[in-house]
Amino acid sequence: MIIIMKDSASALQIEAVEKRLADFGFNTHPIVGEKKTVIGAIGDKRLLSMNEVLLMPGVENVVPIMKPYKLASKELQKEQSIIDVGYGVTVGGNQLAVFAGPCAIESQEQFTSVSRSVKASGANILRGGAFKPRSSPYSFQGLEGDGLKIMYNSGKELGMPICTEVLDTRDVELVASYADIMQIGARNMQNFKLLREVGKCNKPILLKRGLASTMEEWLMAAEYIMSEGNENVILCERGIRTYETSTRNTFDISAIPVSKELSHLPIIADPSHATGSYKYVAPVAKAAIAAGADGLMIEVHNCPEKAASDGEQSLKPHKFDTLMKELDPIAKAVGKKLL
Amino acid sequence: MIIIMKDSASALQIEAVEKRLADFGFNTHPIVGEKKTVIGAIGDKRLLSMNEVLLMPGVENVVPIMKPYKLASKELQKEQSIIDVGYGVTVGGNQLAVFAGPCAIESQEQFTSVSRSVKASGANILRGGAFKPRSSPYSFQGLEGDGLKIMYNSGKELGMPICTEVLDTRDVELVASYADIMQIGARNMQNFKLLREVGKCNKPILLKRGLASTMEEWLMAAEYIMSEGNENVILCERGIRTYETSTRNTFDISAIPVSKELSHLPIIADPSHATGSYKYVAPVAKAAIAAGADGLMIEVHNCPEKAASDGEQSLKPHKFDTLMKELDPIAKAVGKKLL
Amino acid sequence: MIIIMKDSASALQIEAVEKRLADFGFNTHPIVGEKKTVIGAIGDKRLLSMNEVLLMPGVENVVPIMKPYKLASKELQKEQSIIDVGYGVTVGGNQLAVFAGPCAIESQEQFTSVSRSVKASGANILRGGAFKPRSSPYSFQGLEGDGLKIMYNSGKELGMPICTEVLDTRDVELVASYADIMQIGARNMQNFKLLREVGKCNKPILLKRGLASTMEEWLMAAEYIMSEGNENVILCERGIRTYETSTRNTFDISAIPVSKELSHLPIIADPSHATGSYKYVAPVAKAAIAAGADGLMIEVHNCPEKAASDGEQSLKPHKFDTLMKELDPIAKAVGKKLL
Amino acid sequence: MIIIMKDSASALQIEAVEKRLADFGFNTHPIVGEKKTVIGAIGDKRLLSMNEVLLMPGVENVVPIMKPYKLASKELQKEQSIIDVGYGVTVGGNQLAVFAGPCAIESQEQFTSVSRSVKASGANILRGGAFKPRSSPYSFQGLEGDGLKIMYNSGKELGMPICTEVLDTRDVELVASYADIMQIGARNMQNFKLLREVGKCNKPILLKRGLASTMEEWLMAAEYIMSEGNENVILCERGIRTYETSTRNTFDISAIPVSKELSHLPIIADPSHATGSYKYVAPVAKAAIAAGADGLMIEVHNCPEKAASDGEQSLKPHKFDTLMKELDPIAKAVGKKLL
Repeated sequence: MIIIMKDSASALQIEAVEKRLADFGFNTHPIVGEKKTVIGAIGDKRLLSMNEVLLMPGVENVVPIMKPYKLASKELQKEQSIIDVGYGVTVGGNQLAVFAGPCAIESQEQFTSVSRSVKASGANILRGGAFKPRSSPYSFQGLEGDGLKIMYNSGKELGMPICTEVLDTRDVELVASYADIMQIGARNMQNFKLLREVGKCNKPILLKRGLASTMEEWLMAAEYIMSEGNENVILCERGIRTYETSTRNTFDISAIPVSKELSHLPIIADPSHATGSYKYVAPVAKAAIAAGADGLMIEVHNCPEKAASDGEQSLKPHKFDTLMKELDPIAKAVGKKLL
Repeated sequence: MIIIMKDSASALQIEAVEKRLADFGFNTHPIVGEKKTVIGAIGDKRLLSMNEVLLMPGVENVVPIMKPYKLASKELQKEQSIIDVGYGVTVGGNQLAVFAGPCAIESQEQFTSVSRSVKASGANILRGGAFKPRSSPYSFQGLEGDGLKIMYNSGKELGMPICTEVLDTRDVELVASYADIMQIGARNMQNFKLLREVGKCNKPILLKRGLASTMEEWLMAAEYIMSEGNENVILCERGIRTYETSTRNTFDISAIPVSKELSHLPIIADPSHATGSYKYVAPVAKAAIAAGADGLMIEVHNCPEKAASDGEQSLKPHKFDTLMKELDPIAKAVGKKLL
Repeated sequence: MIIIMKDSASALQIEAVEKRLADFGFNTHPIVGEKKTVIGAIGDKRLLSMNEVLLMPGVENVVPIMKPYKLASKELQKEQSIIDVGYGVTVGGNQLAVFAGPCAIESQEQFTSVSRSVKASGANILRGGAFKPRSSPYSFQGLEGDGLKIMYNSGKELGMPICTEVLDTRDVELVASYADIMQIGARNMQNFKLLREVGKCNKPILLKRGLASTMEEWLMAAEYIMSEGNENVILCERGIRTYETSTRNTFDISAIPVSKELSHLPIIADPSHATGSYKYVAPVAKAAIAAGADGLMIEVHNCPEKAASDGEQSLKPHKFDTLMKELDPIAKAVGKKLL
Repeated sequence: MIIIMKDSASALQIEAVEKRLADFGFNTHPIVGEKKTVIGAIGDKRLLSMNEVLLMPGVENVVPIMKPYKLASKELQKEQSIIDVGYGVTVGGNQLAVFAGPCAIESQEQFTSVSRSVKASGANILRGGAFKPRSSPYSFQGLEGDGLKIMYNSGKELGMPICTEVLDTRDVELVASYADIMQIGARNMQNFKLLREVGKCNKPILLKRGLASTMEEWLMAAEYIMSEGNENVILCERGIRTYETSTRNTFDISAIPVSKELSHLPIIADPSHATGSYKYVAPVAKAAIAAGADGLMIEVHNCPEKAASDGEQSLKPHKFDTLMKELDPIAKAVGKKLL
């Protein structure tokens, strides 16, 4: 931690700051410049409230040196995590993970039909919403428990892991009893109670980036889950909020290499929610794989114009099939395996 | 609802769209231009999934005409809501509401001391955090149940309503049994399960704006609560996320007049969280009152440099007292009463 | 300047960094922590390219300590600047400056009429656009030279300084020969050639904040002008670009107190361009004065529905008159003089 | 154009709006709903100031139907433009364009050395800055005229077109006499005088996206250039400003497919400026090609740690060479040719 004193700080004020830091077990090293004094403090900032120092007389600013997250960082684990999600499928290794399925589960027929088709095209994980976070209270909220059963049936039939969102701490046990991977949605990325609750489960967690979350906040959310003992966290970039309105959100392509720099956790990309339009799903999916993503989450619906939710961004099965074939040489070009 | 057809849309495609709309009970009015046909559709878009139309062949775009929220809008209620929060205090009327207290409740002594002092300065509602949403799992998470009791004691002693945050659907009943006003924090503004749960209570809800929420999303969150039967929603602007880093968030001063234009709900301002620095609390508080806010939420701590949370943004009691005196003539200038 | 070395940095790499800094005349102070070494470097970072160090092997990050601007900062001048803009009017003192007039100058009749009326209501500076930056090449681009003459005539007649925008380095001399204050618009805030050119004039400059500029970039733009010898810079906050669309831009109310903290330059507020709607001009104008602004720039048009530019955000003369009367007690409440 | 009337609009107000539109040559089609009346207006909105209508009594909102740009849109030209930039090189066709070179030109030796090396690796256009837009007045501002001559020599020697930025209307003639492609930088994207000036030249223009520009504003800037007669505009995505700070800007990968949807102009990507870090240049470059970009602009410096500008984001020649080899199979996967 570096403490920058004001130009006008007195010798007494500087001494007081050093004393306070020493009380917290820091070793301090003052650097006296012509205009300013700067104090280097060696110790673990995670144990100290920065306020204590920042509000002391004469202090201008405090610059932390260590990252605030630990388990999610590469400090303790340098090699990339590979997460086993069941049925022999892993996320984070050489084989790309492709989560596919409809936004909302509407019926067993719909889900079975879409599932069989995405499997045939090469997807290896089924996705679908049983509990839906909808911005309007008047919109369809999901089939809830019935939806979970529908997914479970399809997963078992096809031998594929299933991934579905959990919205409420009260539903974690129920969802965990059906799902192979539990999803924390963008709107709940800082629902800390929910993060802690899924952190107590032994199921892998797909953690979507919040609508306007920084990389650091995202990794701190992962840290919440991991600090409860569940280290199987998969990051999912799904677009951030910016001023641009030609796509629903702005897919942050740099988040892929940046997360690889900061963390050992695998990261996948969701071009469907990021762009909000089926027209842009394929180019952004290709970009994500080229940039080094460990997989994709793509919405596929057999009848997008009748979808109960997010139809504009869903691909029809034959378009998804084409996309998978187009992605294959790009995957190979970056040393990964898709089909 | 206005449906804009592509330049290339065929007569058959236009006819198909009209037929689909008619099936949903819309009256349609095609307008044939030189390049484009536009279809006006009269009916209630809230009943129809826009996908259905947006994905039909030949459709370029769909423009909704009605607002997606109803109870929170001025459609049904034109006059400003005045919300009774207990102990004879109201929010939304001529008398400004001032919520004051520490960010986190640390002990009965601390809370009693701060409460007495803010009451003496003219605050009429006590605020404090018992359940704290912290971005790090390693930070102090609040006194929880004990914090609620501490607040309750002070509220009773001083005859002041108390406001505190609820984070988890499982805690709503407990928090509602102590608090006069329950707060939904910025990070939970789209925690729809929690919104529904507090919507079932009969306690007023303070709904903070999400970190990156639009006015429409914010009013839709209010609609969630109101649609469950609880119409006592108080909005709270607390800064939005932008690229600017000289303050923690960017306080959106326009949100005050815009909310007055769109909704009948009262709105207060939280300059402490918005700016993140005690230095900027007073000017932003004055601005909010001048712009027409119905009140303020201000963090006050008797010892900010030892605060367990957010000390940088807390005012000391004597600074809060000065601020209240400075605010008084501004309140009068806009026809409101403060002290 | 603080140089943070990587966990893995070798003793040789640390030594090499120290040597390089010493070559640039810095005194270095290494602080050896358990995991990291940090090097404090005393000297003037403004003389050194940070690249040189940032790219050296073993370096993780470089943190500057001094602000990159100097003349615009309070380092050399602590007291608030008061700028004389002619005809006995100053900006930055106790008397608030009110710039008023139409967005674009359309004719002598229009400008004379609006000018007389805003003067009668208490404005003390005339504003109007002769050269207009329009986002469409097909929109009205201003009366150019003729517009300047029209303004000049009205200023002389009414004994009021005039303020108008300059867009092109080739027009600086011409505009300077008519205007009392030259405006650099938001879109040209980082047109560095233009900044240098107006820096060579002896006329006060109104420097609007760029559409998406940080406080630091804004003060660096002021520094460009000041470094050429023209220290008479007036800042103007006019809203920044965010994701929110209910107003054209988001007026950054905190920019007012933040600029007062960082700089001695006066700052005024332009609620017309920030909000883009006449409905929100009055509340935001009041907020700006309450927050400590040194003045306002407000668009007034005698016939906004026929305005050649930005009519939606213009006030009619009688609404401007009402606003001035409503602002007066707020100005008094913050110790300023308006009418 | 669609005019949405307020719920409370009177029959007289509706009639008045229809009459005004008719005066402007619009055919009007009122649609009377239960709560609202909506008026469809057929005609060319580009001829009418929307103010005129928006401010009429009873009007709630006006929704434009046609895009405000024409020459840059696909309305008149549907097929992708292919732009000849000299020496047999084109941008927009099957062969990818690779602009490479140092951020700033420092000497003939430096530029010759970098140029030869990037040519050997497969770049087909040389880039370099002679006039540099620097955020600090105290930073190196470029070799100006001497820099142009250096570039010209290298271009001639190697038979490669050269691309360099022009900052000032006064320099357009000079720069045009040396450069094969003139660049308008992000900070000047709405310097309308400069856009007009380069629109009068017959040299291709590389138009960088503004720091916080929407797709529409960007295409309007292209329209400015094209409306003066110069239709050879190449778009360049270089990252937009968002709240995220782990990269300098956020590269908007969707801008590539969105521009292809809206415009016939070619688009290239600049991962160097977007990310601000050499570490992220390669993954973002790959992503851009996979998403359908027509080329890349990449900073290469033989000695980034001694670069006079933007060294952190420059690749060393051998890293650029590796990147080109890695890009080749991705280019092939999307049907393009690189090496």
